[in-house]
Amino acid sequence: MEKKLHENLITGLETLFNPKSVALIGASTTFGKWGQLIASNIIAGGYKGKIYPVNPGYQDMFGLPAFSHIREIPDPVDLAFIITPANTVPSVLQACGEKGVRGTVIITSGFSESDQAGKALEQEIVRIGQKKEMFIIGPNTMGIIAPYADLFATGAHSRPRKGSVAFISQSGNLGNQLTHWADQQGIGISLFVGSGNEAMITCPDYLEYLEHDPHTRIIILYIESVGHGGRFMEVATRVNRKKPVIILKGGTTEAGRTAAASHTGSMSGEDAIFRGACRQAGILNARVPSELLNLSAGFSSLPLPKGNRVGIVTLGGGWGVVTADQCNDRGLVVPPIPNHMVEAIGRHLPPFWSKGNPVDLVGTRDLDAPIVAMQELAKWDGVDAVMVLGVVGRDEFVHSLIQSTRDADPEISPEFLDQIKAMSRHFEELFISKMVEFMEAYEKPIIGVSLARTDSGTVRPVPGRRYSGVFYQTPETGVNVLARMVEYARGTE
Amino acid sequence: MEKKLHENLITGLETLFNPKSVALIGASTTFGKWGQLIASNIIAGGYKGKIYPVNPGYQDMFGLPAFSHIREIPDPVDLAFIITPANTVPSVLQACGEKGVRGTVIITSGFSESDQAGKALEQEIVRIGQKKEMFIIGPNTMGIIAPYADLFATGAHSRPRKGSVAFISQSGNLGNQLTHWADQQGIGISLFVGSGNEAMITCPDYLEYLEHDPHTRIIILYIESVGHGGRFMEVATRVNRKKPVIILKGGTTEAGRTAAASHTGSMSGEDAIFRGACRQAGILNARVPSELLNLSAGFSSLPLPKGNRVGIVTLGGGWGVVTADQCNDRGLVVPPIPNHMVEAIGRHLPPFWSKGNPVDLVGTRDLDAPIVAMQELAKWDGVDAVMVLGVVGRDEFVHSLIQSTRDADPEISPEFLDQIKAMSRHFEELFISKMVEFMEAYEKPIIGVSLARTDSGTVRPVPGRRYSGVFYQTPETGVNVLARMVEYARGTE
Repeated sequence: MEKKLHENLITGLETLFNPKSVALIGASTTFGKWGQLIASNIIAGGYKGKIYPVNPGYQDMFGLPAFSHIREIPDPVDLAFIITPANTVPSVLQACGEKGVRGTVIITSGFSESDQAGKALEQEIVRIGQKKEMFIIGPNTMGIIAPYADLFATGAHSRPRKGSVAFISQSGNLGNQLTHWADQQGIGISLFVGSGNEAMITCPDYLEYLEHDPHTRIIILYIESVGHGGRFMEVATRVNRKKPVIILKGGTTEAGRTAAASHTGSMSGEDAIFRGACRQAGILNARVPSELLNLSAGFSSLPLPKGNRVGIVTLGGGWGVVTADQCNDRGLVVPPIPNHMVEAIGRHLPPFWSKGNPVDLVGTRDLDAPIVAMQELAKWDGVDAVMVLGVVGRDEFVHSLIQSTRDADPEISPEFLDQIKAMSRHFEELFISKMVEFMEAYEKPIIGVSLARTDSGTVRPVPGRRYSGVFYQTPETGVNVLARMVEYARGTE
Repeated sequence: MEKKLHENLITGLETLFNPKSVALIGASTTFGKWGQLIASNIIAGGYKGKIYPVNPGYQDMFGLPAFSHIREIPDPVDLAFIITPANTVPSVLQACGEKGVRGTVIITSGFSESDQAGKALEQEIVRIGQKKEMFIIGPNTMGIIAPYADLFATGAHSRPRKGSVAFISQSGNLGNQLTHWADQQGIGISLFVGSGNEAMITCPDYLEYLEHDPHTRIIILYIESVGHGGRFMEVATRVNRKKPVIILKGGTTEAGRTAAASHTGSMSGEDAIFRGACRQAGILNARVPSELLNLSAGFSSLPLPKGNRVGIVTLGGGWGVVTADQCNDRGLVVPPIPNHMVEAIGRHLPPFWSKGNPVDLVGTRDLDAPIVAMQELAKWDGVDAVMVLGVVGRDEFVHSLIQSTRDADPEISPEFLDQIKAMSRHFEELFISKMVEFMEAYEKPIIGVSLARTDSGTVRPVPGRRYSGVFYQTPETGVNVLARMVEYARGTE
């Protein structure tokens, strides 16, 4: 990017991600066309600013007045989405510049990712943008999501809640899927950008912006190539010390590289060098997309561990065993607990309990037992983190049991069963609030493993609290997140 | 087990898992007690045989006549569940023997897993069982599930459908959780046994039975210790050649071993030796419980791959890249496709498509494209397996888009949107039936990756077909299953 433009990067992107008005150039009402996907998502997503559809074929669209050209919009336009055919984009962009548009998101594809002519076209639009001092996202992007502006402008209509995870993706479809998962799992985001071909604004530019964005606490990146590797590593290293930057680099193997080349129109760099540089800088590399999501949930909701020692609370023995195995495999230590803790926890358990770490609650129905065990471990200076298996998640089993009892026992009181149901649900809420309370009190992560695929999502916020409850479905997921948080904490010491 | 009893093992277990009548000794109507958990599950689960609750405190229970003692049951009893306190179990077992009960499941705990007195008690019950020629499952088991007998007799009330996966678990709570996941994911099972302390019937006994069970095509085991390692490996090796035997051994690391010792009352054997022996025998070891589930879905629903070459079809580029990377990491090859296939597939795609493997459908809405690409790859002798990403699963995005369009566009025809919705759903069904048809025609596994957490489950059976559609949520899960199927196929050549 030109120096002059770069000086305005942060304020420019601020406007772009918090626009007071948007123009949709190439808006359409034909179901499934890109102009319809973007327009209907912005409108149905509840964007509060002014919306100006631009399409010469319409008087009005979506119940809004339509304009035949951007110059006919009577008011200022902060951000324009461009969804017209590739060969029209230079003139559209020119018109945007003349109108005084501050930034554009070019959805249109057919640029450097396709052929030589596309490459030339892409250079032309960058020149126009620079001349008009107008920021360009894309081209060939699937859009952006700015939850704090209530702006949902992607082809896929997932709408994750407001949160602290920023996500930049060079692949649109991978990005869409991850925001969809974030939505399903209750992971709040501060921003999503499909960066597309990165003709003008590149990954390190987004990182510099996010470094100062007050909503963002963690940044995840899916990249297939880094243009100017040096600047990328320099910025990423700096930002990572303040806010974790977690990277998934696609195209790291031969097969992936071939696929990446035809997909984004650029060959991946020297990946071994890239990974080595990340490791040295303390930047985490994720192996697979789902890991990006799981790390997002953990890093955005839990305090960082100060060491690698783990206390485990489990509702039943087998899960404790496999979790301890996983911890050892990943360099986490599961130390034995001292006698005073055995006594304190034992008061709530039958005499034949395990008397060790993992603390096996032997399926007890004493509702104090899991809370006492969790607190005893959290406040003990012998561990740096706590994992709790199967306590939250048991509700699902209670529900099936209640249903069976209704079916099987004609004499059972329905009111009694309703009470049990409410109690079970209430206990889970109480447990989550205790979890978050103990995280604040002892500044240690407490990671939940629900063991069940619940509709409640991975992240369970508690109003007024800094941290949130986090519940992964499997122990290996929880153990991996904890191991990587330990790795991050060590790498940035 | 005594020789005489062992001769009757197969017919004995056949009766035990297909009983015409069951006695529930220690049945209870007190919500949440073990006697209530087991009884209400059997009754609500729709068991078709005779049910005799035995408890001297009741005239009737669950609308059935109750008996004060097992000897008072007027008819023969095939199977007795024993849920009375540990110290009463010998006399209860004695009475079962006198009544001519064929087999028992002892739910009660407090035997060898607890202390020396418990060990002695366990030896006593084995002696009684042997003398009376009566098979004993457990003690300290969470129960059994025999779907083909409509018998759901576990403390957790999950009821997976009838299928071909048999599952034996030394950990009750881990077993319950896995049957729960199987239920949620549509994975059909032939049998589940919580083998508990294995006082009489041990893992190799179950394997010998399952070797001949016509419903069982694949066997998964969670074990923490193998008593007579030699016999275990001998039987497992033999059975594994006919039906895959997949093992998760808990307690493989120091921390896990300590946890396992207090949990099942036995120290784990030499795990490195165990794993080495498995590898030599071509028996797969799973790393984590969720892998057992994922492998169950694959092995029970797909043909075995004959080699390690993979064709990939993806709706969008990024997922193709990360999947190709994963394949390479796991020793699977993603070969380039020949020109005639590029032409055949290209007929259904825009000119700028990737023209390679992975076949990137660039988000096309041409509904023939994914089917043509899948068939071209499946019938090509250059690959041994096909993976399809994001085709089934897109329906979820279509739904959000329809909802947004309804919200955003006052002029849209609701009937038109309903049509789109029906078409999208219908297409997914069509695609799954094609998938299964091609698997039969070309005898190659075709693995789906939905990318979405759908309510439809992992396994999607197609009536009248040998194979089923299988859809994992993430590419890494699908790649792992395929890599492990290749490993199995090679190890048993």
